[in-house]
Amino acid sequence: MSAAAGCPLCEGPGGRVVLQAPRWRLVHAQEAGLPAFYRVVWQDHVREFSDLPRDDRIACLDVVTTVEEAMLRHLHPAKVNLATLGNMVPHLHWHVIARFDWDSHFPGPAWGPAQRVADPARVRVIEAALPGLERELAARLRPSP
Amino acid sequence: MSAAAGCPLCEGPGGRVVLQAPRWRLVHAQEAGLPAFYRVVWQDHVREFSDLPRDDRIACLDVVTTVEEAMLRHLHPAKVNLATLGNMVPHLHWHVIARFDWDSHFPGPAWGPAQRVADPARVRVIEAALPGLERELAARLRPSP
Repeated sequence: MSAAAGCPLCEGPGGRVVLQAPRWRLVHAQEAGLPAFYRVVWQDHVREFSDLPRDDRIACLDVVTTVEEAMLRHLHPAKVNLATLGNMVPHLHWHVIARFDWDSHFPGPAWGPAQRVADPARVRVIEAALPGLERELAARLRPSP
Repeated sequence: MSAAAGCPLCEGPGGRVVLQAPRWRLVHAQEAGLPAFYRVVWQDHVREFSDLPRDDRIACLDVVTTVEEAMLRHLHPAKVNLATLGNMVPHLHWHVIARFDWDSHFPGPAWGPAQRVADPARVRVIEAALPGLERELAARLRPSP
C-alpha cells in the first residue's frame, strides 16, 4: 500500500463505503444532487490511470463496468457517465454516475452548472433502488481481489 | 458496422481525424480552448461502454491508455482527464484531455465554466508538440485492429 500525506482519498473513504476490496473500494457520493453517484477508488495512491499495470487497469475497469451494468438494470438511467479526472484530487478514482433526463444537471456533466431542481419524488425513487443495486454489486464483486 | 441516423458521430468524424482503425478512430477536438483534447470514438453506434464485449472494452481502453501515456511523455500535463459521458451524443466516445495548471478550465473539468484566459504563448507550445505526439501514436497504434 502506498499512501500520500494530505490526500483526501488516502486519509478518508471519499464517500459512504459500499464495498472494500484489497485493491479498490466502491463508495457512494452525495454530490451535485445526483442520487446515483458512485466512485471506484483505487486503494493505492496512484496518479494516472496509465500508472497502473495493464492487469490492474483491466481489473479496475471490470469493476467500473459491473457498476454500470447494475445501474442500467436497477435504475434505468438515460445514460451512465464514467470519468477519471483528478485535477483536484490526483488519486485514481473513477466516477460512475447514473444520469436521468430529469436530473439536476442533465444533459450537462455532473461538474457543470445545474440546469434545474430535480423533482424530489423522482430522486426518492432512485434512492429507494440503491440498496438493491448495492446488494447485487456485493454479490457480483465480492470474489474480486 | 451499425450506424444511427442523425447521430453526429455516425455521420461525421467528430474532430480532426488523427487515426482510423477498423473498430475506433482517434480525433483531435477544438473544444473549450484546451489545446490537447482528443477523442477515441468507437466506429459502431454503441451507447454504453458496457454494451461492448469485454475484449472490445479492453481494446478500447488500451487505445485510451496509449494516448494518455503519449500525452504524459510529450506534453508533461498536470493531469490527464478521461471520460465517456454521452448525454448529448450517446455514441461511445472517450475524451482524453491533457490538462495544465494554466489552462482555461484548470482545476475544473473541461465542461465547467472557464476559470481564466489561457496564455496564448503556452497554448502554442502545446500545439507545437501535437505533431510529435500524433506521430508516436500512429506508430504505436497502427497495428491495432
